[in-house]
Amino acid sequence: MGARVEEMIADSMRALVERDSELARRVVDSDQFVNRLELEVDDACMRILARRQPVASDLRFITLALKIVTDLERIGDLAANIGERVLELNEEPPLKPYLDMPRMADTARGMVRNALDAFVSRDVACAQMVIERDGELDAHYADVFRVLLTYMMEDPRNIYRATRVQSIAKYLERVGDHATNLAEMVIFMIGGKDVRHLTSSGAVVSAVRDE
Amino acid sequence: MGARVEEMIADSMRALVERDSELARRVVDSDQFVNRLELEVDDACMRILARRQPVASDLRFITLALKIVTDLERIGDLAANIGERVLELNEEPPLKPYLDMPRMADTARGMVRNALDAFVSRDVACAQMVIERDGELDAHYADVFRVLLTYMMEDPRNIYRATRVQSIAKYLERVGDHATNLAEMVIFMIGGKDVRHLTSSGAVVSAVRDE
Repeated sequence: MGARVEEMIADSMRALVERDSELARRVVDSDQFVNRLELEVDDACMRILARRQPVASDLRFITLALKIVTDLERIGDLAANIGERVLELNEEPPLKPYLDMPRMADTARGMVRNALDAFVSRDVACAQMVIERDGELDAHYADVFRVLLTYMMEDPRNIYRATRVQSIAKYLERVGDHATNLAEMVIFMIGGKDVRHLTSSGAVVSAVRDE
Repeated sequence: MGARVEEMIADSMRALVERDSELARRVVDSDQFVNRLELEVDDACMRILARRQPVASDLRFITLALKIVTDLERIGDLAANIGERVLELNEEPPLKPYLDMPRMADTARGMVRNALDAFVSRDVACAQMVIERDGELDAHYADVFRVLLTYMMEDPRNIYRATRVQSIAKYLERVGDHATNLAEMVIFMIGGKDVRHLTSSGAVVSAVRDE
């Protein structure tokens, strides 16, 4: 499921840069496949919970799988949304800030991959790195947004395209947020500590431990 | 948790209309409280899974509670994001399309409330209604977006504020998406059928049933 959503993000960028609307449409359609995968994983998790009644770290692993697939499915939705915006942009002449999108996409995809690697190999350091990279992606989005504002102010004919590019940048930034959620949940699973919501003092709110 | 996020949305609108930055800041701060509630519910669910080993519809109820709190927490994030945009807008003279925001917010809040009512009272018809209203909210967003584009084209001095209002409209539209996710999950829980991802032919993908 992770590999598929990563591929969707990569394909949507290729569709933007190479102005390939056929490929953009395929990305939009792939969303169905990811949706089915979520149902299959949910199904498998609930069967395991019902039949095997796992406890301790197995229970954490299964309940997190249930939450993780929700994030992956939303990432698939976002990739499909990017595909839709690319279809709109491919009807218009290109606008310079397109160039930033593949770089943002690489960061976002890398974060998703690392978060899932961290989940599979139960690697806290790897998950921690994902969380740190989110700031990078947010800063990149802020830069792109400033550039797009300038384009809009310079020439009203840029406004429509600039808002489409802004949407794509925002979707990529949200992919990074989902990857961060995944990474935080992985750290929770491994440590029995919850870093999802640090208090303002920086103290970790402890959560469920092994029963 | 639902009541709190609803209140955050309502307060963020009051902060916008009445230009009350103090209130907007309180909305931003409330997010911490919602985050803690998510941890508490997760904790309670995992204890029940480990100690009581529920099956059949009880198992579905608990696993859905785990997923539902994730959506509620994200709705809290969105309300906090609205609060941040309101703080930015309150530094500027008002722009006419503000007027649409409270109406969009009422729809979004109503959807969240109805989805949670449907969860608690296991009411399929109520959940179904939430899903239908999402189209209304999407259409409203599209209208607002068109109006904002016009404002931006008319006068570059509107661009900055228009992008802030567009963000708020988009956050509200996403609150509606989360409410729709909640409603779909409720229908899944009640019927053992999954309406989350209908195939293009309209056939329902069946999912886990009582063991």
